[in-house]
Amino acid sequence: MIRVLFAAGDEAWDSYALPLKAAFAAEGLTADLSRDHAPTVVDYIVFAPDGPVRDFAAFVNTRAVLGLWAGVETVVGNATLTQPLARMVDDGLTQGMVEWVTGHVLRHHLGMDTHLAGQDGTWRVGVYPPLARDRPVTVLGLGALGSACAQALAGLGFPVAGWARRPRRVPGVARHAGADGLQRALQGAQVVVTLLPRTPATENVLNGETLGWLAPGAFVVNPGRGALIDDVALLAALDSGQVGAATLDVFRMEPLPPSHPYWTHPRVTVTPHVAAATRPDSAARVIAANIARDQRGAPLLHLVDRAAGY
Amino acid sequence: MIRVLFAAGDEAWDSYALPLKAAFAAEGLTADLSRDHAPTVVDYIVFAPDGPVRDFAAFVNTRAVLGLWAGVETVVGNATLTQPLARMVDDGLTQGMVEWVTGHVLRHHLGMDTHLAGQDGTWRVGVYPPLARDRPVTVLGLGALGSACAQALAGLGFPVAGWARRPRRVPGVARHAGADGLQRALQGAQVVVTLLPRTPATENVLNGETLGWLAPGAFVVNPGRGALIDDVALLAALDSGQVGAATLDVFRMEPLPPSHPYWTHPRVTVTPHVAAATRPDSAARVIAANIARDQRGAPLLHLVDRAAGY
Repeated sequence: MIRVLFAAGDEAWDSYALPLKAAFAAEGLTADLSRDHAPTVVDYIVFAPDGPVRDFAAFVNTRAVLGLWAGVETVVGNATLTQPLARMVDDGLTQGMVEWVTGHVLRHHLGMDTHLAGQDGTWRVGVYPPLARDRPVTVLGLGALGSACAQALAGLGFPVAGWARRPRRVPGVARHAGADGLQRALQGAQVVVTLLPRTPATENVLNGETLGWLAPGAFVVNPGRGALIDDVALLAALDSGQVGAATLDVFRMEPLPPSHPYWTHPRVTVTPHVAAATRPDSAARVIAANIARDQRGAPLLHLVDRAAGY
Repeated sequence: MIRVLFAAGDEAWDSYALPLKAAFAAEGLTADLSRDHAPTVVDYIVFAPDGPVRDFAAFVNTRAVLGLWAGVETVVGNATLTQPLARMVDDGLTQGMVEWVTGHVLRHHLGMDTHLAGQDGTWRVGVYPPLARDRPVTVLGLGALGSACAQALAGLGFPVAGWARRPRRVPGVARHAGADGLQRALQGAQVVVTLLPRTPATENVLNGETLGWLAPGAFVVNPGRGALIDDVALLAALDSGQVGAATLDVFRMEPLPPSHPYWTHPRVTVTPHVAAATRPDSAARVIAANIARDQRGAPLLHLVDRAAGY
């Protein structure tokens, strides 16, 4: 019998309790999933940053903390958390992100907004977008999400460059790393997609200088983290035309306040953090499979590198 | 020296004359491209249905007619046309179609229009689309365009079914043929993309009965031919909710008249025949390569089957 503490919010409990129990059973695990285990008897913690656990010191027998969220920036600096910490890397979340990113990149590429705004009976001929193969795209971040998006965009014909601190190999995607690599990755890009983790090193990676490296009129698509973008610099670049349009799914403050200029800018699309959702069924399977690995002595997957911050 | 008659409109001449000459040279062909050759000296005709040639009887020494357009319904029944007729099958046109179809399918799939219409400062949480793998798509027509689109959609995870009179094998796509097959292909589909040629057999393939086979609230995307859809039936299905939304790029009459109800229907998007454009550079290379094949005794590519009508 293993004891699993569910340390996330009330809504998460309603969504995850049954899928987790089913996933444990499917892995052959005899598990007692509860929100009320005494800390010293807990083998594993299923964790969300908005849940009740802030201090991990009392969990002296806990073998691992398994996150329900992909982002760990609010917990990675917690000094009481000495147990192994695994991020959520969920096939469903990755797939949803690929669909959202591909859809919005194609929306900008095809100039859809102009067509949608032109339903007035006027037949406007003659303006065709370039083909995807003539529209360079850069993806900042080549983790599970970024590399999947880069690969999907390359599959549609876009020339794709990727940049990351530790870039992984993605078929058909040019890789760049480091500060020099950032300029090479962004120079002349007509679309930039930001899928970096939030760390001190990635904050404001899109700023006045780096936005200036893009092709004039480039599109910015941010499904990653709000802090990746210097908001004042982006608004200035939109007003100057250096950035043609931006679609933003994440913000420094969420919900984005009604008074924020992003809401009213004619070439900014705000979406309410919908690019990728963790699906309870598939996320529960990921957590159960990781616990089963640990129980049979295999290394945990998706462990967070505390020094790197993700 | 081969003599090539350019039989398309004035605008086409301005777009195609230089690319064709460059493409002939690149193929090693010594060709005299002109709009004024006497019919009896013409070896090949570069043809568009809106050009000057209606009667092909005088072109007694012409080895082939090479179309600039993918659609041939306005010429295939011309009894004076006894020479081999090749359709335009252009990689650039196919690629552009794939981008347009993938983009608009993802737009409907992701519910983008709701987000675009919701830029009012209200953060609307909680509604996620299903993943693509839970959204069945049917492509009617599995020629060069339909099979390329079906493959791209399957690559993004959509379960894709295809239907055609002579269905080609497309990796990951379920194939259906014939009248029985049409119902099997459409039953429960949440998205239908129409990319059939226009023939007497395909006219009104989407009608009151066949639209009723789709899943309630399905999306209709038509970049093929206007006549594939019974317009009255589609408007009724939109009003009943059986069809959730439609994006239409082609119409029985183009430009679509300003008074047509498609323009004002809140769940219809009209685009002005932009889904796929023949790009002069790549189309010129296709024509030059086909002439070069004929000159060295190889069979012409993309020949039209007169009996089938495409």
